[in-house]
Amino acid sequence: MSSLPAAPVRLEPLADEGVLRGGDGRYEKFLGDLAGLYRDEAAYRAALAADAGAPVYWVETSTPEHGDGALTVGISVLEPGTIGDEFYMTRGHLHRLADRAELYYGLSGRGVMLLESLDGESRAVEIGPGTAVHVPGHWVHRSVNVGEERLATLFCYPADAGQDYEIIARAGGMRRLVVRDGDGWTTRPNPDHTGYRRD
Amino acid sequence: MSSLPAAPVRLEPLADEGVLRGGDGRYEKFLGDLAGLYRDEAAYRAALAADAGAPVYWVETSTPEHGDGALTVGISVLEPGTIGDEFYMTRGHLHRLADRAELYYGLSGRGVMLLESLDGESRAVEIGPGTAVHVPGHWVHRSVNVGEERLATLFCYPADAGQDYEIIARAGGMRRLVVRDGDGWTTRPNPDHTGYRRD
Repeated sequence: MSSLPAAPVRLEPLADEGVLRGGDGRYEKFLGDLAGLYRDEAAYRAALAADAGAPVYWVETSTPEHGDGALTVGISVLEPGTIGDEFYMTRGHLHRLADRAELYYGLSGRGVMLLESLDGESRAVEIGPGTAVHVPGHWVHRSVNVGEERLATLFCYPADAGQDYEIIARAGGMRRLVVRDGDGWTTRPNPDHTGYRRD
Repeated sequence: MSSLPAAPVRLEPLADEGVLRGGDGRYEKFLGDLAGLYRDEAAYRAALAADAGAPVYWVETSTPEHGDGALTVGISVLEPGTIGDEFYMTRGHLHRLADRAELYYGLSGRGVMLLESLDGESRAVEIGPGTAVHVPGHWVHRSVNVGEERLATLFCYPADAGQDYEIIARAGGMRRLVVRDGDGWTTRPNPDHTGYRRD
């Protein structure tokens, strides 16, 4: 080995503060970044007009090294809310290297991971404190906050995975929508979905 | 893609029960498997003579797929105790593909991750509920239970990583020992350690 290995990192994913102490990266998504994500455009425009400018969700990460075998670890924090009858959600992605898997471990709140294969399967899996979702490769996936509090998850994926967000936009959204159903949630088909196509 | 992707898996790492609900693999290590791990051979023999036959530590895993990009997720559970002045510990390993990283996230108990590079660095990092250690590639690492309760951690690493345990045995043990120090712990040099050598 020609160089010293990267130093080990002690991390504290702080769900209440929405912070990954010890991490080295962060990005935020605001309501204004999410045009086209929700089907109810009038509700989206109304929410945007009333928006106080705080992020809808953000991600903090630890990537102390790159290359084969490296992992990115992080915390994802998603505020509660709805636009029309759809719950707040992340944009969702397929990994650019589509065979890269991912682990999500629930820290706080009440969420649903929506997972769809390119060839027609759709799964909605609940995630919350103390439960995890092991996402194999080749699944388009998104987090949805179906509770009243922030949804915070710890995640881990190969650092070279990358994110393809456009595959969802090209398909007219994910196959199913996660919507309010009384005090709970359910899924229904997205009538705009036209099937997933790789580039 | 010629075949359907592996199905997503919902996991419940249950620290109290020491179980990964939803997992698909398990192994156990008993005191009798750990000859040579502790420096105090008389204390080891006495512990073995009094041993009730329960495992010292065990690991339950989820590996729903193999190949590039796949992850193994699991729970590691290590009983509390000492042999001489050394705390109960896992054998420790370098990944067989040495550049493979690993995440450990503390679920219960009070532990130390002992991490050593092949070229002489040694680190001891505390881990407990809500804290994590992000282990980059090329670090020999072991978990040590420095508390009075079971140490349970959630872990995640590339499924092709593999484990090389022999590198520690060939070196006469890890460079440092994690030992009792009053009510706490400290590390001291292992006089038997002869340096790490790959095969």
